[in-house]
Amino acid sequence: MSVLRRLMTVRRPSPIVLLTDFGYEDQYVGSMKGVIASICPRAWVIDLTHDVRPQHVAQAAFLLWTAYRFFPNGSVLVGVVDPGVGTTRRILLVKAVGRFFLAPDNGLLDLVLSDEHPEFCIDVAVIGSRYVPPTVSRTFHGRDVFAPVAAHLVKGVPPGKFGTRIAPPRSQTAFVTLRSSERGTVLHVDRFGNVVTDIRIDDAGWLKALEVGRRRVTTRVRTYGEAPFRTPCFLIGSSGLVEVAVRNGSAAKMLGWDIGTQLKIRWA
Amino acid sequence: MSVLRRLMTVRRPSPIVLLTDFGYEDQYVGSMKGVIASICPRAWVIDLTHDVRPQHVAQAAFLLWTAYRFFPNGSVLVGVVDPGVGTTRRILLVKAVGRFFLAPDNGLLDLVLSDEHPEFCIDVAVIGSRYVPPTVSRTFHGRDVFAPVAAHLVKGVPPGKFGTRIAPPRSQTAFVTLRSSERGTVLHVDRFGNVVTDIRIDDAGWLKALEVGRRRVTTRVRTYGEAPFRTPCFLIGSSGLVEVAVRNGSAAKMLGWDIGTQLKIRWA
Amino acid sequence: MSVLRRLMTVRRPSPIVLLTDFGYEDQYVGSMKGVIASICPRAWVIDLTHDVRPQHVAQAAFLLWTAYRFFPNGSVLVGVVDPGVGTTRRILLVKAVGRFFLAPDNGLLDLVLSDEHPEFCIDVAVIGSRYVPPTVSRTFHGRDVFAPVAAHLVKGVPPGKFGTRIAPPRSQTAFVTLRSSERGTVLHVDRFGNVVTDIRIDDAGWLKALEVGRRRVTTRVRTYGEAPFRTPCFLIGSSGLVEVAVRNGSAAKMLGWDIGTQLKIRWA
Repeated sequence: MSVLRRLMTVRRPSPIVLLTDFGYEDQYVGSMKGVIASICPRAWVIDLTHDVRPQHVAQAAFLLWTAYRFFPNGSVLVGVVDPGVGTTRRILLVKAVGRFFLAPDNGLLDLVLSDEHPEFCIDVAVIGSRYVPPTVSRTFHGRDVFAPVAAHLVKGVPPGKFGTRIAPPRSQTAFVTLRSSERGTVLHVDRFGNVVTDIRIDDAGWLKALEVGRRRVTTRVRTYGEAPFRTPCFLIGSSGLVEVAVRNGSAAKMLGWDIGTQLKIRWA
Repeated sequence: MSVLRRLMTVRRPSPIVLLTDFGYEDQYVGSMKGVIASICPRAWVIDLTHDVRPQHVAQAAFLLWTAYRFFPNGSVLVGVVDPGVGTTRRILLVKAVGRFFLAPDNGLLDLVLSDEHPEFCIDVAVIGSRYVPPTVSRTFHGRDVFAPVAAHLVKGVPPGKFGTRIAPPRSQTAFVTLRSSERGTVLHVDRFGNVVTDIRIDDAGWLKALEVGRRRVTTRVRTYGEAPFRTPCFLIGSSGLVEVAVRNGSAAKMLGWDIGTQLKIRWA
Repeated sequence: MSVLRRLMTVRRPSPIVLLTDFGYEDQYVGSMKGVIASICPRAWVIDLTHDVRPQHVAQAAFLLWTAYRFFPNGSVLVGVVDPGVGTTRRILLVKAVGRFFLAPDNGLLDLVLSDEHPEFCIDVAVIGSRYVPPTVSRTFHGRDVFAPVAAHLVKGVPPGKFGTRIAPPRSQTAFVTLRSSERGTVLHVDRFGNVVTDIRIDDAGWLKALEVGRRRVTTRVRTYGEAPFRTPCFLIGSSGLVEVAVRNGSAAKMLGWDIGTQLKIRWA
């Protein structure tokens, strides 16, 4: 019966979650999955998205932050938005809140680390590592470093084997949580044209207006469906952040706001 | 040996098939898959497509109808094109033709229900349900309601646990199947610019022409390859519907036809 | 214990890798996966990409070539870019370098076959085959032929059952590997605007310039990160081919080069 029990608990490995700016039209993501399958045939990959704007680390940091808590404990979240590929920038393997995070040391983990205390952080070795092929492309560490490290990790290699332990990087970013703050920033514009800000408050009732120059959003709603037509409104979106939406339309287009736009905040 | 037999039949759960208008650039679909993985680690998700035009319920109804029969019995087909999210619209769980269909009660299941008799229909509970997290976003039921219900369903929760049994909605749409019909509609334009109509006949030989104003398509072919260049032709496409195509070109662009375009039908 | 050992080795079937021009907005790829799941419920599908330019066989040949070696032995790589669908063109099942390749006989396998010696080649039967449904759409062999053949193959059907053995097609294409060559071709433009050529040399040091008319690229780098801004540079890319890149920009746009562009090569 102990044999049976052992068998019944032969479990699927934890998922590898991929977040990249590789897009969907090239062979890049598929090649990463091929490498993972070759190393760990039972591995299981979930695409977070591959449509991060090319080299836009800050957008990737937002997308990772807004999704990581929905993946099970043990998941390996791999972020490859990596303008410094092939240079001396470090690759980090961080454990926090029961998940693993693997990403270049370029700020991609900033928002996660502003919320979660890291258990440990590894500076992932590339040269001389037994988990990385002897010849590594200078332009595609996604395939040659990130994919094999993630695959070996879900296969059971202890994290410490991938490099040396270092102090985790400090987060450089913070959300707007105080009603005394006067400035916010647009973190993301989604497919529907909804504008997601870095304002994280429990109650949008305290917010009076968001402004850029003469453009001003003052209407507050609870759901997209209750918004009046053609009127940009703000609400607490599904990430717990204030976002601006237009019913059946694109707030980003109507207002001309985009990622990085600086907002003036008016409080009640 | 009975232990062995039981083990050998430990099967993969039925697939969860996702159809949404969430696109590929955001974290939305990835978050749904994270929720599913957290509830049912052995779950298995297939993307039908996430590129339904934003809030275009009728297009989603077509895409679901044209694909559902190709998924195995027991599959859970989840359609989230949901302009009414957060309002009082119902969420339906329908069993028909051996598959489960989970979608808002907004017409998304219309074409399937015009062809298949439902075994039962559940009005899915949100508030107070033990299968839905206590706090549900008002704007993202895909993650907070549809994903957990689908995951619990493939995990083995009986359908009746998700809500109360109701009479299934009546389909509001019908295909053109009679040669006395004079009007048709464009249901879909695919990536290649092929224009898919709602005309479902066994034999395109009875069809003489499709017209919109002075634009008229009269050439009939059996395959894309036998179409003359630069000439819009009609044929019976892979969904069993009449479609208009241009060899190596886009019929939709050449004719200026799009989803919703009304067609005049001429019969032989 | 032998029972236990047998159980422990119940392995996941080899992956089916899909490469098509079906895009992501339609139901086409999802339907193929439904067919595969219906035939082989334990099957495992990896998307290489579905965004090959419509009917662009040469681009598909490049994408397949650049990725196939990263998939495990036993993988079934399925390429469906098939302008001749429904006509008399053949469908090939080739075994080479431990993998299976399933594609129309239209040149899609050309680059792979220029590098790898085929073990055998099968002319896949459609009419009368027990592995293909009795009614096959004339426009969607991806769903009705390629998907079921691939699913039966990973399920364990011997390759010879799918048709008759024939001599493998000869590759019509070759890479530029000799420093005496004066002409090259653009094989691919990736999401970042990097221009991938068919020049495969060990050392970009021997390359002096790439030219089209008066446009000339003469700067050589090893990584994207060391390129000067706004200057097209060439380097050996992750596929082992010479590519032209612009730091944080699109070389394809800046130079006006695209797939098929003919290049003049200057050697040192």
